[in-house]
Amino acid sequence: MGPGPSDVAPSVLMAMSKPIVGHLDPVFVKIMDETKTMLREVFQTKNDMTFPISGTGSAGMEFCFVNLIEPGDTVVIGVNGVFGTRMCDVAGRCGANVVKVEAPWGQIIEPKQIADALKTCKPKLVAIVHAETSTGALTPVEEISKLVHAAGALFVLDTVTSLGGCPVKLDAWQVDAVYSGTQKCLSCPPGMSPVSLSPRAMEVATKRKTKVQSWYLDVNLLASYWGQDRVYHHTAPISMAYGLHEALRLVLEEGLENRFRRHEQNHKALKAGLHAMKMEIASQAGHQLWQLNTVTVPAGIDEAAVRRRLLNEFSIEIGAGLGPLKGKIWRVGLMGETSKKENIHTFLRAFGKILNESGYAVNVEVAIAAAKV
Amino acid sequence: MGPGPSDVAPSVLMAMSKPIVGHLDPVFVKIMDETKTMLREVFQTKNDMTFPISGTGSAGMEFCFVNLIEPGDTVVIGVNGVFGTRMCDVAGRCGANVVKVEAPWGQIIEPKQIADALKTCKPKLVAIVHAETSTGALTPVEEISKLVHAAGALFVLDTVTSLGGCPVKLDAWQVDAVYSGTQKCLSCPPGMSPVSLSPRAMEVATKRKTKVQSWYLDVNLLASYWGQDRVYHHTAPISMAYGLHEALRLVLEEGLENRFRRHEQNHKALKAGLHAMKMEIASQAGHQLWQLNTVTVPAGIDEAAVRRRLLNEFSIEIGAGLGPLKGKIWRVGLMGETSKKENIHTFLRAFGKILNESGYAVNVEVAIAAAKV
Repeated sequence: MGPGPSDVAPSVLMAMSKPIVGHLDPVFVKIMDETKTMLREVFQTKNDMTFPISGTGSAGMEFCFVNLIEPGDTVVIGVNGVFGTRMCDVAGRCGANVVKVEAPWGQIIEPKQIADALKTCKPKLVAIVHAETSTGALTPVEEISKLVHAAGALFVLDTVTSLGGCPVKLDAWQVDAVYSGTQKCLSCPPGMSPVSLSPRAMEVATKRKTKVQSWYLDVNLLASYWGQDRVYHHTAPISMAYGLHEALRLVLEEGLENRFRRHEQNHKALKAGLHAMKMEIASQAGHQLWQLNTVTVPAGIDEAAVRRRLLNEFSIEIGAGLGPLKGKIWRVGLMGETSKKENIHTFLRAFGKILNESGYAVNVEVAIAAAKV
Repeated sequence: MGPGPSDVAPSVLMAMSKPIVGHLDPVFVKIMDETKTMLREVFQTKNDMTFPISGTGSAGMEFCFVNLIEPGDTVVIGVNGVFGTRMCDVAGRCGANVVKVEAPWGQIIEPKQIADALKTCKPKLVAIVHAETSTGALTPVEEISKLVHAAGALFVLDTVTSLGGCPVKLDAWQVDAVYSGTQKCLSCPPGMSPVSLSPRAMEVATKRKTKVQSWYLDVNLLASYWGQDRVYHHTAPISMAYGLHEALRLVLEEGLENRFRRHEQNHKALKAGLHAMKMEIASQAGHQLWQLNTVTVPAGIDEAAVRRRLLNEFSIEIGAGLGPLKGKIWRVGLMGETSKKENIHTFLRAFGKILNESGYAVNVEVAIAAAKV
């Protein structure tokens, strides 16, 4: 119940243990094709260039920036947590002039902030973190995307924690480049990063003046490997691909809308239980993530000690705050397979017991009853 | 029996399917520590900075170059196959002036060639492919390493296919930066790249004037994640790490020397069988890889058709030639778990049957008998 990796379904773990075939074997090529098709459905896009990068979510982030940025390009990046901060670092290493649009950690990036930034510069792209895993805030992006396109820029979106847990609509929202992770709401082990580039982004990537600085992440090379040509590039992580294939199948078997509703309902249940314990969600009201709940640590409580006891005595992992939120929040994940009623009840019971023993009096039975409504 | 991925032991596949824990969980930290210790043993090094990169072998290659090269640096690269060629591409993308030392594909890089190159330039590093997977040649590196260090340069070595299949002695050979893959002679699924940097290489990486161009592969950040601090960088691929941990345990359980002897003996057996079939190993005599046997395609035989029949009728994968060797060789892998007597016999029987039916008369029983001596 941390900020990821989330629990993994038994059938996905089973898929991970299947015997290895060659990465250009017809059996594996079929898995590659089906994975691309399912990823398009999950991303709600028709983008041809939709596939998983052979690295974790951060490699997916780097993939988007190295392919789209050339030295000297200006980029606007929304910074309201760890991952916006990371995007600035990655973009800077690509030689970009980075214009930061900042919001306090836990708050969203407002469209007006982007509009204001677009008055001061003419960026090649604007990048936003959809679901900030470090703060629990979900930034609405539809209006921002319109502003970005009106300014003639590409729109880049981090959906590491949002994909599979709440609506992500690439085509409807006109997202040009997106990356995600496998270990959050897709409930696959970490190790790959689903990405997708719009035809507009592909045009930018293929008409660059300079070579992409990363050979490993160069979409011009990856397109031939994951495309119809099957030109050898690197050796894809076969077992991870088996796992992702099965995880995506489970997502689509449940249905995207059902899956989102489950995440929403379980978030509400947890929130009701926490509320009954006099606990507050730390992120901005109205924009709280369903899959990652940040909880304000009450005064006088040692947040690390609570986490340690949850792990050691109850085998429950929750996450710590990062950066300015260190020591101030807990992060309780309800992602994918982890988003279950029984997990909420087990967590509230253990959490309440520890809080009571730490001198913060709560009524556990009332909290669990509240979570069941 | 292709050029990798190789077969994976059942206990490694079992490990891949174990439930996921958090990537900063004490259980996982212990796995990280043990993996580093075992990797040092397999690499025969005391280098503190020895760990697996969260990407495939090509990411390991990029890791070495992005961390050691700054724009304008001169590098000497031995090119005698696909992977030396790839190193030039990767180094060029780091802004290096690349001096190529070339040998025909299938031949080794001679120390004299490196000595000659070192008379013409003053490189920051010299990089060599130990075992060229594309050609089946094993370049001896001890003498080359001495020349490199005498010239004050760092020595970088690709051990993707050599590690675990034949001696790789980082400290004895004074290798400064090395990368490997999991899916060759370590017999783990593909997805991670074991790397190691000597203290001298670490000094270069930490005293750079410019930032490492890749955030994902920046050793200055990875050192804190894989070191004692456990500072969050990216989310390690948990299941892959489980698999690598078990694969390394199996390598050390067998013993490095036993493992090398097994690879050598099986290479000799295959070679004897092929010889009895009037087939020749294509790579340079005296420097033929034990784990990857390149076989010259006889005149009049359609190499792709033979591979297709082996796969479709006998479920045996072997590899095709690449680049200038396309259509001219087959690549028969005897890597890690795949290096087994029964695989050699099964292969010779199937291969011989197809050759006979293709009009190239061979005596299969004689070949198998030769392989059994």
